[in-house]
Amino acid sequence: MVRGIYIGRFQPYHNGHHKVVEKISGEVDEMVLGIGSAGDSHTKKNPFTAGERMLMVTRAIEEFDVPSYVVQIEDLKRNSIWVSHVESISPSFDVSYSNNPLVIQLFREAGKEIRQVPMFDREVLEGAEVRRRMENEEDWQSLVPIPVKDIIEEIDGIRRIQKINESDSER
Amino acid sequence: MVRGIYIGRFQPYHNGHHKVVEKISGEVDEMVLGIGSAGDSHTKKNPFTAGERMLMVTRAIEEFDVPSYVVQIEDLKRNSIWVSHVESISPSFDVSYSNNPLVIQLFREAGKEIRQVPMFDREVLEGAEVRRRMENEEDWQSLVPIPVKDIIEEIDGIRRIQKINESDSER
Amino acid sequence: MVRGIYIGRFQPYHNGHHKVVEKISGEVDEMVLGIGSAGDSHTKKNPFTAGERMLMVTRAIEEFDVPSYVVQIEDLKRNSIWVSHVESISPSFDVSYSNNPLVIQLFREAGKEIRQVPMFDREVLEGAEVRRRMENEEDWQSLVPIPVKDIIEEIDGIRRIQKINESDSER
Amino acid sequence: MVRGIYIGRFQPYHNGHHKVVEKISGEVDEMVLGIGSAGDSHTKKNPFTAGERMLMVTRAIEEFDVPSYVVQIEDLKRNSIWVSHVESISPSFDVSYSNNPLVIQLFREAGKEIRQVPMFDREVLEGAEVRRRMENEEDWQSLVPIPVKDIIEEIDGIRRIQKINESDSER
Amino acid sequence: MVRGIYIGRFQPYHNGHHKVVEKISGEVDEMVLGIGSAGDSHTKKNPFTAGERMLMVTRAIEEFDVPSYVVQIEDLKRNSIWVSHVESISPSFDVSYSNNPLVIQLFREAGKEIRQVPMFDREVLEGAEVRRRMENEEDWQSLVPIPVKDIIEEIDGIRRIQKINESDSER
Amino acid sequence: MVRGIYIGRFQPYHNGHHKVVEKISGEVDEMVLGIGSAGDSHTKKNPFTAGERMLMVTRAIEEFDVPSYVVQIEDLKRNSIWVSHVESISPSFDVSYSNNPLVIQLFREAGKEIRQVPMFDREVLEGAEVRRRMENEEDWQSLVPIPVKDIIEEIDGIRRIQKINESDSER
Repeated sequence: MVRGIYIGRFQPYHNGHHKVVEKISGEVDEMVLGIGSAGDSHTKKNPFTAGERMLMVTRAIEEFDVPSYVVQIEDLKRNSIWVSHVESISPSFDVSYSNNPLVIQLFREAGKEIRQVPMFDREVLEGAEVRRRMENEEDWQSLVPIPVKDIIEEIDGIRRIQKINESDSER
Repeated sequence: MVRGIYIGRFQPYHNGHHKVVEKISGEVDEMVLGIGSAGDSHTKKNPFTAGERMLMVTRAIEEFDVPSYVVQIEDLKRNSIWVSHVESISPSFDVSYSNNPLVIQLFREAGKEIRQVPMFDREVLEGAEVRRRMENEEDWQSLVPIPVKDIIEEIDGIRRIQKINESDSER
Repeated sequence: MVRGIYIGRFQPYHNGHHKVVEKISGEVDEMVLGIGSAGDSHTKKNPFTAGERMLMVTRAIEEFDVPSYVVQIEDLKRNSIWVSHVESISPSFDVSYSNNPLVIQLFREAGKEIRQVPMFDREVLEGAEVRRRMENEEDWQSLVPIPVKDIIEEIDGIRRIQKINESDSER
Repeated sequence: MVRGIYIGRFQPYHNGHHKVVEKISGEVDEMVLGIGSAGDSHTKKNPFTAGERMLMVTRAIEEFDVPSYVVQIEDLKRNSIWVSHVESISPSFDVSYSNNPLVIQLFREAGKEIRQVPMFDREVLEGAEVRRRMENEEDWQSLVPIPVKDIIEEIDGIRRIQKINESDSER
Repeated sequence: MVRGIYIGRFQPYHNGHHKVVEKISGEVDEMVLGIGSAGDSHTKKNPFTAGERMLMVTRAIEEFDVPSYVVQIEDLKRNSIWVSHVESISPSFDVSYSNNPLVIQLFREAGKEIRQVPMFDREVLEGAEVRRRMENEEDWQSLVPIPVKDIIEEIDGIRRIQKINESDSER
Repeated sequence: MVRGIYIGRFQPYHNGHHKVVEKISGEVDEMVLGIGSAGDSHTKKNPFTAGERMLMVTRAIEEFDVPSYVVQIEDLKRNSIWVSHVESISPSFDVSYSNNPLVIQLFREAGKEIRQVPMFDREVLEGAEVRRRMENEEDWQSLVPIPVKDIIEEIDGIRRIQKINESDSER
């Protein structure tokens, strides 16, 4: 039995993530999806709450039919204990998937197996582009799985992003 | 669509919890299971990590066949923001289930619907009794769902509980 | 110009506190009232929020007609920086009033002037007795200033205390 | 009885804030002034401590003769619980005043009444301009209420700002 | 080259610790002394600050003439990341010395070598007894190394302990 | 007996620091070396852990033959309590050495003696330049004391820096 973990901020969960998860689902018996920067929300870079993102991820990955767990990973100030933190909140895992050099380095220093995944159509699919389109009411719907589109509309997510981006730094 | 949340420490998840979840699963369309005191582990009262408990809960509730989400809820020092904290990390919910008077009071002051659930066979099934039997190697296996038994054995949980309970207060 | 600070938990602000404040108001030009354990609420020992206590204190001390400031002081884990913390959140002060030996010791080690105040009718007036009477619906009203009684009734404080005290430790 | 809250960083409290408060004081029975980023001080953007700002605000608003409360609001990492945090440290309020889009969005999502206030003579009066003049010893005195000017001089605030701004990032 | 770590609260560092350190110094090339509960001070159980304890330990172990490092270890809420935390603040070590069952269990689960040390004359030498004698001005001096005695007298430690122990729980 | 403290981030400890320490060692009887931003590691600006830096500093300063203490100082959000925090984790000190205007201002407001030190060959020796050379595998070895060079090689520090700097902001 092999369990693999894949960590992202999922702001929002988009087709780029989805293709990576699809690939991982073919390599492992069980998956853990880790929602990074879980404590952040209502900011330009992190508009959605951890609860909202959990809903997106869970709904979207149902189609892969692999037993899955979704955990929320708050940012820590201390990089040096980050791997240990992830291990304490996740079901134990055998392999980690990431494209992030820091994550790769931290897992490697901790002696864990790490696999790099290709990021598909990176330029178009990355979160920043999805959020930019949302703000400008361009076509963002085609960049995310359908269940994610539904959730964002249900929580009035476009309006939130537009309002947040008006915000100056004076709060 | 009605979504309900049920929060417990699940140290470990036992048959008492399981009957409550069974009952809730008949009343709602989707369930959120909230793992309380998520940051605690390796103590007499909280031996298991959040990741281990997530595994127990997920495996045990599979049989109810209701779409479910498992979230981890760390203790906050501030009771006054606890409800708001739960709302930010959980998919939105319509009704809360609890037997804990403080939880009931906090949700009530926040204007949320709360339903009290009967705790079945409370004396025997409560977590403290299960942990006591584990420490003394009495029959604890019959008090928990089978997937939970398997997980505890796999992680060598009985030994951990025995070791922790030897601990004096000098660390 | 002499400014004095007096720190208490004020759970709730009662006639014992009120007599101390009256005495201090005759010795200084301006007063700072520090609400201790500001982050705590909805517990047996700390039922009221910092905001509720701020309301009680402000209303009650109006009659003394001395310019006053009310600050909220959260508990710190580190006693060694507590005095410095108080100094950063309060308007600067010349003298501290307290009956608590730890507070007295901390201010003394920091080289600050500290004055001990007699606690009037301590047994009857102390907070624990007021809270006990509230829980049992005995006469608590006569132990607090009238504005405090009004606020507690307005926020349904008696019910909260009764509910909290039913709470077991299972949250 | 209507109680309104107005939140700002007040670094320092200046005539722009003062006109807003004057306007609010005509619309409510009681005011809460919330000092934002309360934990910050001795930085370029936040030179004054929460205690110093409490002194400025309290002295300056005395002239409006409306019962007022001054609370200190520390920054939270979690935007999603910020409204709940404010509610726990403030006397309960009916309406919030703000010009900050994020604050407006957070209160709106929490279902609270929010009123936008015009910011008078924004360019000249905003805090950044006041702090710039302080650093360069240009006329800042005319941009703040007289009691604020007195406090800043008493605490040697100009020198602090000049020293802080020399600071490189090596601490 | 073998480096070993020994962790204690050292409240204060006494002859029981000293004999353990002496024994360790004969087994390793370099030692790390970890001051536990580093953030605590001015309490009955933890009267001395981390800085004061660093002074005691450093002065006392000079006689063993083994290269040594003294690190301060704050308590974490999460036991599950404690080993990783210690590793990030200490020079890397090969073996850990402890008598505490929890510490032993945590290091063992992390796959680290751990050696149990006999605690010499435990009843008389343990910290609680030393602190009790200090409070009652009985002979505590003979239970600690001479440099520790000197430091405690220099910082007026006996008076602090006596004052703290008068403290009721009302702060 | 005069004890002096010198605080730096020491990322890594280089010849510029070393000359300052040499000068200080001639002016005091005992030294405290304070490792700033102790919680940070594995970032572009702060690649090394507190434990690794403690090793570098301790080994490098051995040659000065002055009794020394190395303490780790985590960043605080509150500048206003920073001096008090340093005092609680360090053996008591009489004089502070710094070139940082903020540190100088904070110590001065706290009424402590502060001495400014010349930074030798600042442009070449500052940490940013050392880290830049490490990343590009230019000559960094000549900018640090020999024991520091050995430690960095032993922990494979160059590779860590190179990997971290590849990191995008998506973790």
